Amino acid sequence: MKTYLDCLPCMMNQALRTARIATNDYVKIKLVLDEVGAMIKDIPMHNTPVQSGSIVYRKIRELTGVVDPYKDIKRNSIREALALYPTLIEYMNDSDNKLLTAIRIAITGNVIDFGMNKYFDLEEDLKTILNQDFAIFDFKEFVNKLKKAKSVLYIGDNAGESVFDKILIQAIEKPVTYIVRGIPIINDVTMEDAIESSIGEIAELISSGSRAPGTILDFCNEDFVRRFNEADMIISKGQGNYEGLSNVSRSVFFLLKAKCKIIANDLGVKENDIILKGINQ
Amino acid sequence: MKTYLDCLPCMMNQALRTARIATNDYVKIKLVLDEVGAMIKDIPMHNTPVQSGSIVYRKIRELTGVVDPYKDIKRNSIREALALYPTLIEYMNDSDNKLLTAIRIAITGNVIDFGMNKYFDLEEDLKTILNQDFAIFDFKEFVNKLKKAKSVLYIGDNAGESVFDKILIQAIEKPVTYIVRGIPIINDVTMEDAIESSIGEIAELISSGSRAPGTILDFCNEDFVRRFNEADMIISKGQGNYEGLSNVSRSVFFLLKAKCKIIANDLGVKENDIILKGINQ
Repeated sequence: MKTYLDCLPCMMNQALRTARIATNDYVKIKLVLDEVGAMIKDIPMHNTPVQSGSIVYRKIRELTGVVDPYKDIKRNSIREALALYPTLIEYMNDSDNKLLTAIRIAITGNVIDFGMNKYFDLEEDLKTILNQDFAIFDFKEFVNKLKKAKSVLYIGDNAGESVFDKILIQAIEKPVTYIVRGIPIINDVTMEDAIESSIGEIAELISSGSRAPGTILDFCNEDFVRRFNEADMIISKGQGNYEGLSNVSRSVFFLLKAKCKIIANDLGVKENDIILKGINQ
Repeated sequence: MKTYLDCLPCMMNQALRTARIATNDYVKIKLVLDEVGAMIKDIPMHNTPVQSGSIVYRKIRELTGVVDPYKDIKRNSIREALALYPTLIEYMNDSDNKLLTAIRIAITGNVIDFGMNKYFDLEEDLKTILNQDFAIFDFKEFVNKLKKAKSVLYIGDNAGESVFDKILIQAIEKPVTYIVRGIPIINDVTMEDAIESSIGEIAELISSGSRAPGTILDFCNEDFVRRFNEADMIISKGQGNYEGLSNVSRSVFFLLKAKCKIIANDLGVKENDIILKGINQ
């Protein structure tokens, strides 16, 4: 997915939000906006938005000196999600179709996204998404692929969402490799976050090496790219991974909530729709 | 009111929205974002947001070559408001307190604001605002001032809103001078718009000479500034005029809906609150 014009003001909004989380120093926050504003003209529009985003967030790190501004927010998200975990397990076990319910739960976790300017309430969102119609629903293909797969590569998105992913990983009932980002970026899930989410108990944890808030193969490490190319089945969570992987030639199942108009348009759905989309089946 | 950090990404959003209305040419729209982004660092934060806004909108005019991108939108707003006019008159005449109802009607018109990224529905908004509590309600002071005033200076805000202003001008029952902007800027009311709104039938029409989407005395013409300094009573509509006049030393009554968080914070109210605020009484 390319960068749209609407992504540019959005980057300014993200820059302001993140700079404020990183520091209380007005001068530094203003400098972030000045510098990100001046960078707009140099952003290649054929890049994916996450690639452009990685440049913006790198600039914020440089200017504020704060490497992981969302650290505390991520801790809280994981803690909140872990507290919900027994309820999530119950929801899955009480349902007629455990795999489908686990997919819905995993998509619910995708609301924990601090790259977006959206309010969320995990318990409310869970109730909504458990009963929401899918705008794209390639479930049959998902089940078929899963049946034949010996193992699954599962590309995580956000910290806290990772706990919701754990439910789906359990429902999959196959060996899973769970992929995390290479550095802290926004509230995306890192190795430390995945361990704290106790995913290590049920899946192999691997870093893609990505320094962007999504997965762009050209910028991932060799080990991940090899695994990506060889995987029996790939599950990709969230917007950032969709942005980076929507044009790859491998079979991928995207699970996400379309949290902005631009992603929704690109997918041909409406904002806030939920998606289970398989490509290259 | 000074420019807040949040105003800067908002300017990028406004630039994108306006450039798209002005032209379909992707290259020109991108250029607008590039140039406005690069201007961010030069925006003096002690300026009022409307002063900064006037620089941004001037840049958009230069780059797109379109002097009045909102021309058709303004025509439509006025037409829609004129169609509602008989209903508005009825609402006023059927109410127990005509002046207060006319004030509520005039505030309803303030939703017609294309500087904001807000959806509005005139008839729905009218029903809401006719029954909404005021967050600031200096009505007693307004009535007292009006009783003593021989005439009233009424600073208009948007085209279409102008038709709603006509109701309040009638309820005032004193000679009124209605102030319009000096040039087309966003969908703000100009001389042509005021005439089309048929305000000329019941009020004297005067241009402030303002080239900003609000009223900044330093940039208005002498005639207006003199009238402003000598007026028995001043009514100021909308956010742009509030931004420019909130710190003047004259008595002013601000009538507006707080359509963004920044204005709401500045006023000490919540977003979407309605305001009748008198200063320097």
